[in-house]
Amino acid sequence: MAADRANGDYRPLVGITMGDPLGIGPETIVKALADSRLRSRARFIVFGLEEALELAADLAEINPFWWREPYDGTARVGRGVLVADFDDLPLPRINGHREPDELAGAASFRFVEEGIRHLKAGTLDALVTGPISKQAWHLARQPFRGHTELLARRLEARRVTMAFVAGKLRVALASDHVGLFDLRNSFTIGLVYQPIDLLDKALREWFGIARPRIGVLGLNPHAGEDGLMGDEERRIIEPALTLARNSGLDVAGPLPPDTAFVPEVRRRFDGLVAMYHDQGLIPVKMLAFREAVNVTLGLGVIRTSPDHGTAFDIAGRNKADAGSMRAAIELAIELAARRRLVATAADRP
Amino acid sequence: MAADRANGDYRPLVGITMGDPLGIGPETIVKALADSRLRSRARFIVFGLEEALELAADLAEINPFWWREPYDGTARVGRGVLVADFDDLPLPRINGHREPDELAGAASFRFVEEGIRHLKAGTLDALVTGPISKQAWHLARQPFRGHTELLARRLEARRVTMAFVAGKLRVALASDHVGLFDLRNSFTIGLVYQPIDLLDKALREWFGIARPRIGVLGLNPHAGEDGLMGDEERRIIEPALTLARNSGLDVAGPLPPDTAFVPEVRRRFDGLVAMYHDQGLIPVKMLAFREAVNVTLGLGVIRTSPDHGTAFDIAGRNKADAGSMRAAIELAIELAARRRLVATAADRP
Repeated sequence: MAADRANGDYRPLVGITMGDPLGIGPETIVKALADSRLRSRARFIVFGLEEALELAADLAEINPFWWREPYDGTARVGRGVLVADFDDLPLPRINGHREPDELAGAASFRFVEEGIRHLKAGTLDALVTGPISKQAWHLARQPFRGHTELLARRLEARRVTMAFVAGKLRVALASDHVGLFDLRNSFTIGLVYQPIDLLDKALREWFGIARPRIGVLGLNPHAGEDGLMGDEERRIIEPALTLARNSGLDVAGPLPPDTAFVPEVRRRFDGLVAMYHDQGLIPVKMLAFREAVNVTLGLGVIRTSPDHGTAFDIAGRNKADAGSMRAAIELAIELAARRRLVATAADRP
Repeated sequence: MAADRANGDYRPLVGITMGDPLGIGPETIVKALADSRLRSRARFIVFGLEEALELAADLAEINPFWWREPYDGTARVGRGVLVADFDDLPLPRINGHREPDELAGAASFRFVEEGIRHLKAGTLDALVTGPISKQAWHLARQPFRGHTELLARRLEARRVTMAFVAGKLRVALASDHVGLFDLRNSFTIGLVYQPIDLLDKALREWFGIARPRIGVLGLNPHAGEDGLMGDEERRIIEPALTLARNSGLDVAGPLPPDTAFVPEVRRRFDGLVAMYHDQGLIPVKMLAFREAVNVTLGLGVIRTSPDHGTAFDIAGRNKADAGSMRAAIELAIELAARRRLVATAADRP
């Protein structure tokens, strides 16, 4: 409801990349946008293969609600949902056993490249990315490990941070896809400071919180218990907190990780910063499995995505849950609307 | 209710050590045992200072429900609640600012030593330990870091594992109070195998599950994603799983940690094994804050404790929640009753 109010008559142009055509991306997009109320809140361009959408719609008994145009490099603005169809691409076989595939990898890479191009140009107000297969990108000889690396490169972002939104819980990660013990080699004050700074900025500019309170977790059990178990709290996290306070941010920590997510504690903060992937993702998925949204901070543009992968094992069988895709689209709309309000307010004399 | 059925007319003798007299231990014991229905399910000996219990009862307006005897080295068996009063001990000041104190540390250490002695002798059927201050034990020049180390030594246990019970969720930890990055040096196949083996045994003997299904978490994000992020799954966790399967155990894993605790996954298992403290404790405390119980596996005897510490900051002000102490007492009763049933069944020809 808050989103509707913030939204008003503004209907942002949201790009959606289909993700791997063999994964559950097409199905979740069709199921999420089948809701006409969601469609009425924005205009959409889906970058992908129309054939994959049609197949998913058939299986789910959903009447096509989009119109199609062969993709010619432009992002047209219209009403409702435009499918920019990459029908020039060699198609992977969509039936049968689904697994990482070179053609599918090349296709999903193209969708994202084009989505980013229009996002960077300002044509799109936000980009929602469907799940890709890192292995398929590898088979297609793409040098990028995933969306985030590609986005950071194309948008020339020096620092990006993976964050998750699950209802009122907003968690930014100091590190993400790195082996737990390998993290030791890159665990620095800058690594901890960056997500604090970017989360503060996002909470102000995108979520409209004037002075966000941010809780920063410790790394070790009991946050080290005064250095008894690990000294990273003293050597790294506390200096990062000092840096943040000196920049005028409202931060608390290092919080004992095991109680940071109980309601009494997490409610004291507008956002939390977790030190590593599972420290943030275990609670996010427990609180909002299938409804959590991944947001990339530090890009300067709005990019969200569902928190799940391609799920090849259930793809093509009308079994996918579209909750997280829907939440990712909704959040993209809300953030675009909020950013516009903040920007408009800043323009006033 | 299941516990009541399992319990029948059997009323085990449960020892309760008061913990640090300056902490919230006395208050939580008084509040938990103030419930006459709980008292009727077992017989109790509280090892501690009666004065601390009286003070807590006064503040909570609870009428004393116990009888007191000066502790003379024996554990008498009676009805209801006996307070074995260590009135020969030099008393710490119970009023005013509460913090780790040498006399209080020496006292809480004595309570535990005596509790263990009667547990080892078989006089007690189970022991519930109130929270101690590790710092106070240190001030009192006790060489043990905490309960678990002392219990392991006195009971000559080679391998012990910290586990938590929160309703249907039972989680054993492969490691506990060690710095996260220091764990690298002790992360071995044996370290991972031990909690699987001990959890299986506990689920059979204490929880009455004939063939427990155990889920074992990975260490790295996405359980390493085929070695992409860390190789501990391949080098250590998978061999530990093989070892367990070869011993006839029903195990699955390594599970991606971030989804292991969502209902759909955790319900598939009777117990889970987490690789490190916060991987297990974040979900346990989220699911059952103030009701989770700590159980030590591998001692050969039943020992439970609440999942919180001394909480000096709120001690002595009638502010403590007794939920976890109550749950610890209930679980001790249930496990003692279950063990007796299993033992009785095994005795039959």
